[in-house]
Amino acid sequence: MGQFRNQIDEIFLNGDSDSIKEALLEHPTADIADFLSKSEVRDVIEYLSLIPHSESGRIVSEINRDTQNELFERMDRFQFAFIFENMYSDERADFFQELEKENQIELLPYLEKSIREDVIVLSAYPPETAGGIMSTDFATIQEKMTVKEALNKIKKDNPSSKMIYYIYVVDDRMIMKGIITIKDLIMAESNDSVSELYQENFIYADVNEDREDVALKIERYDLVAIPVLNSLKQLAGIVGHEEAIDVIQAEATEDMEKFMGITPSDDEETYLETSSFQHFRRRVAWIVVLAAVGLISGIIIQKFQNVLEQLIILALYMPMMTATGGNSGSQAATVVIRALALGEVEDSKWLKIIFKEAQVACLLSVCVGLLVFLKINFFSAAHNIPHNISITTIGALIAAAMAAQVISSAIIGAGLPLLVRRLGGDPAIAASPAIATVVDITGLLIYFTIASLSLSL
Amino acid sequence: MGQFRNQIDEIFLNGDSDSIKEALLEHPTADIADFLSKSEVRDVIEYLSLIPHSESGRIVSEINRDTQNELFERMDRFQFAFIFENMYSDERADFFQELEKENQIELLPYLEKSIREDVIVLSAYPPETAGGIMSTDFATIQEKMTVKEALNKIKKDNPSSKMIYYIYVVDDRMIMKGIITIKDLIMAESNDSVSELYQENFIYADVNEDREDVALKIERYDLVAIPVLNSLKQLAGIVGHEEAIDVIQAEATEDMEKFMGITPSDDEETYLETSSFQHFRRRVAWIVVLAAVGLISGIIIQKFQNVLEQLIILALYMPMMTATGGNSGSQAATVVIRALALGEVEDSKWLKIIFKEAQVACLLSVCVGLLVFLKINFFSAAHNIPHNISITTIGALIAAAMAAQVISSAIIGAGLPLLVRRLGGDPAIAASPAIATVVDITGLLIYFTIASLSLSL
Repeated sequence: MGQFRNQIDEIFLNGDSDSIKEALLEHPTADIADFLSKSEVRDVIEYLSLIPHSESGRIVSEINRDTQNELFERMDRFQFAFIFENMYSDERADFFQELEKENQIELLPYLEKSIREDVIVLSAYPPETAGGIMSTDFATIQEKMTVKEALNKIKKDNPSSKMIYYIYVVDDRMIMKGIITIKDLIMAESNDSVSELYQENFIYADVNEDREDVALKIERYDLVAIPVLNSLKQLAGIVGHEEAIDVIQAEATEDMEKFMGITPSDDEETYLETSSFQHFRRRVAWIVVLAAVGLISGIIIQKFQNVLEQLIILALYMPMMTATGGNSGSQAATVVIRALALGEVEDSKWLKIIFKEAQVACLLSVCVGLLVFLKINFFSAAHNIPHNISITTIGALIAAAMAAQVISSAIIGAGLPLLVRRLGGDPAIAASPAIATVVDITGLLIYFTIASLSLSL
Repeated sequence: MGQFRNQIDEIFLNGDSDSIKEALLEHPTADIADFLSKSEVRDVIEYLSLIPHSESGRIVSEINRDTQNELFERMDRFQFAFIFENMYSDERADFFQELEKENQIELLPYLEKSIREDVIVLSAYPPETAGGIMSTDFATIQEKMTVKEALNKIKKDNPSSKMIYYIYVVDDRMIMKGIITIKDLIMAESNDSVSELYQENFIYADVNEDREDVALKIERYDLVAIPVLNSLKQLAGIVGHEEAIDVIQAEATEDMEKFMGITPSDDEETYLETSSFQHFRRRVAWIVVLAAVGLISGIIIQKFQNVLEQLIILALYMPMMTATGGNSGSQAATVVIRALALGEVEDSKWLKIIFKEAQVACLLSVCVGLLVFLKINFFSAAHNIPHNISITTIGALIAAAMAAQVISSAIIGAGLPLLVRRLGGDPAIAASPAIATVVDITGLLIYFTIASLSLSL
C-alpha cells in the first residue's frame, strides 16, 4: 500500500523546503497524512507552516487523532483555529466531539461564526446515525436558476472537490426539491432552466437513520453521496461513498467479533494499540459465561455415569461428537448470519431456511456417520465391552448419535440467529461459541440417551 | 430497502404506459431492475420498448443474470444488440463472458465495431483482476487543450454520468499523463490550459492487479474511481467506487466463510438460490476432515484410560475443557485475522502479537480457573474418588489444566493464522473449526498429563 510512500520518506528526510512544500501540495493526502502521523509534532508544525491553511486543513483531516491532539496542545490557538476551520466538516466535528469539555470551550471563540455553528450542530448527532457521519460540504442551487447561474453559485459555494458530483436543488427554506448531477449541468445549454433538468425522485437518508442502513443505500444505488434530510425535509448534510466503505468494513469486523463472542469496541484503536486489559475486557464475559454453561455438560455426564462406566469406549468419541456438532452448527450459523446481513434472505422465510439447513445436514451426517462406523468397526483396539454387545452394534450406535448430532446442531445453528433477529436483536450475537456450547449439551444428551436405550434393550 | 418499491409495484400493476414510461426513466435504476427481475420476461420486453435503447441499456445492466439471459433468448437479435450496446461496459463484458461460445459468436456480428472490440478486450481479463472489473466508460482530454476545449471533448465522449468525476489526461498514444477533477475544470477560466491544472501524481492500478488490492486503494485514497493502466502505462479502463464496495463485501463474506470451514463459491447466487447439494459440497470437506482428526482425541483418551477409570470425575469436565479452549483460540484467531485483513498489523510483528494474546489469555485463565476451582470445591456432588486425594486437590488440578488450556489455545489460535500468512496463504483458512479441533487434542493432552502426574505423586 502507499504508491508514493518511499518517495515521500525520501523527500521529507533529504529535501529542501520547496520540495517538501510541493510534496505536501501534490502527493495523495492519505500518504502524506500517514507520514506526518509518524513524525515529531514540532516537525509537523513546521511542515504545515509551508502551505496555506486550506491545504493544512485537508491534510490534518486525515492524520491520526493522537497527532491532531498534539497539534491542538502545541500550536498557537489562532493558528490551530485557521487549520481547524479548513478541515473537512465531518472530521472537524468528530475531532471536536472527542475534545475535553474545557478544550471545546477554549477553542470555540477562535472560530468564525458559521463554522462554530456547523461544528456544534454536527457534533450533536450520535455517531451511529446518518447525522453523526454526515458532512456539510455541499453545493445547493435553486430550481428557478438557469444552468449558467447554477454553475456560478457552485463556484461560489466551493465545496471540497470530492463533494461536487451531485448538486442539491433546494427552496428558500433549504427544503430539498431534487438532485442534479454535475454532468447534467455541463451537458446542458447555459440558458436551460434547472427546473427542467433535475431529478425529483431521489434517494435520501434521515438524520436519525442508522449509519449501516445509510451505507447499504449508498451501495444499493451506487451513489457517490447521499443527501441527509431532517424531519422538515431540509437538507442537513451529505454522506459520501467513502463513509459507506468505512461503515461496511467496520460492521463486517463487528459482526465477526460478535460472532466469536467478542464485545465490539467503539474506539478506532488498531489491534496493537489496544491494551491487553482492554482486549481482555472485550472477551471475558463470553468465555466465563460459556465455561459456566459448559458445566451443564458435566451434570449430564454425571447423570449417565453408570452408562459411561459400563461402556468406557463412549468417552473416546465424546470430544469428536461435541466438536463435530460445533462445526456443523457454526457453519450453518455463518451462512445464515451472512445472508441476513447482506439482505439476501428475510427472516420471514425462516421455515425455508431451517428446512434447507436440515437437508444440507442430512447429507453431511451420512458422510460423518459412515466415517465413524467404519472406524469403530474396523480399526478399534480391543476394548472391554460387555459380552452381550458387539462392536458393530456400538459402531452403529455411535454413528447414529453422530448423525443426529450433526442434524440437530445445524438446525440450532441456523435457528438461533433467526430467533435473535425475530426478537429484534443482531443475529451475529448468536455467537459461534454460544452455539458450540449449546450443541455440546444437546449432543451429550443425544449421545447418552441413544447409548442407554440401546444398552437396556 | 427500496424507498420507491411500493410505489413502483403500484405503477407497473395499475398504471398506463405513460406512467410506466415515466417510472422507467425517473425512478432509481436499482429499484426498477429489482422489479423487472421478478417480472415475466414478455412484460419486460414490452416495458423496455417504451423507452430509448440508451435507457434500456442502463436498466438491463442492473437486472439479474437469469432475466438478462431470457431477454437474449426471446428478443429479436437486432433489438437486443441495441440494448446490449448501451449497457455499462463492465456489465456488458461480464454478461458476454458468461454466454455460451455459440451465443457469443451469434451476437458479435450485430455489434458496432468499436463495441465489439471493447467487449472482446474486456472479457479477456480474469474476473479477480483490475482488468476483470474495470469499465471503459471514461472521458479523456489532452494536456495541450484549454479548459473550454476540454469541456467540449467531455461532452463529445459522453461517458455515463457516474463516470465523469475524474477526467483523464492522456497523450496521443493513450499513455496516461495525469488526472483532473471536473471541479477543477469548472472552477477554472475557459482559456486556462489543462497542462497547468492537472495532477501528475495520481494513484492507479495495473490491469493484472488483484481486485482486492484495487478496492483497498480506492478505500485508502477515498477515490470515486481509479484509472487502470496496462504495461505500457496506457489508460485501459477505470474501476469505480461501487465496485470497491462490492469487492470489500464479497471478501468479508469469503473471509467469514473460510474461517468457518466453508469453501467460498465464485457464483453470485444468494443463499436460497443455492441448492442444498451445493451448500453441502462447500462444507463437507472440513466437517469430515476435522471429524477424522477428532478421532485423535479418542486415541489420547484411550492412552489415559486407566487414569480416567480411576478418576471418572475427570470425564465430567472434559467437554467444558475442550469447549473453553476452542472459544479462547477462536477469539484470538478472529482478532488477529481481522487485524491482518484490515492491514492494522503486519505479520512481521508476530512475536508482539503472540505475546499480547498470551497476556490477554493469562487474564482470562485466572477468571476461568477460579470459576472451575470454586465449582469443584464447593458444589461437587459426592464422587467416588480415591481416598488419598482430596476434592480440593482435584479442583486445583482441573483448574490448573483449564488455565493452561486457555493460554495454549490462545497462542495456537493467534499463531496458526500468522503461520499461514507467513507461508503465503490466506490467514482466514486457519479456520475456527480447525483451531477448535487442534486445541481439543492439545487440551486433552494437557488435562490427562497434569492429572496422571498428580495421581502418581
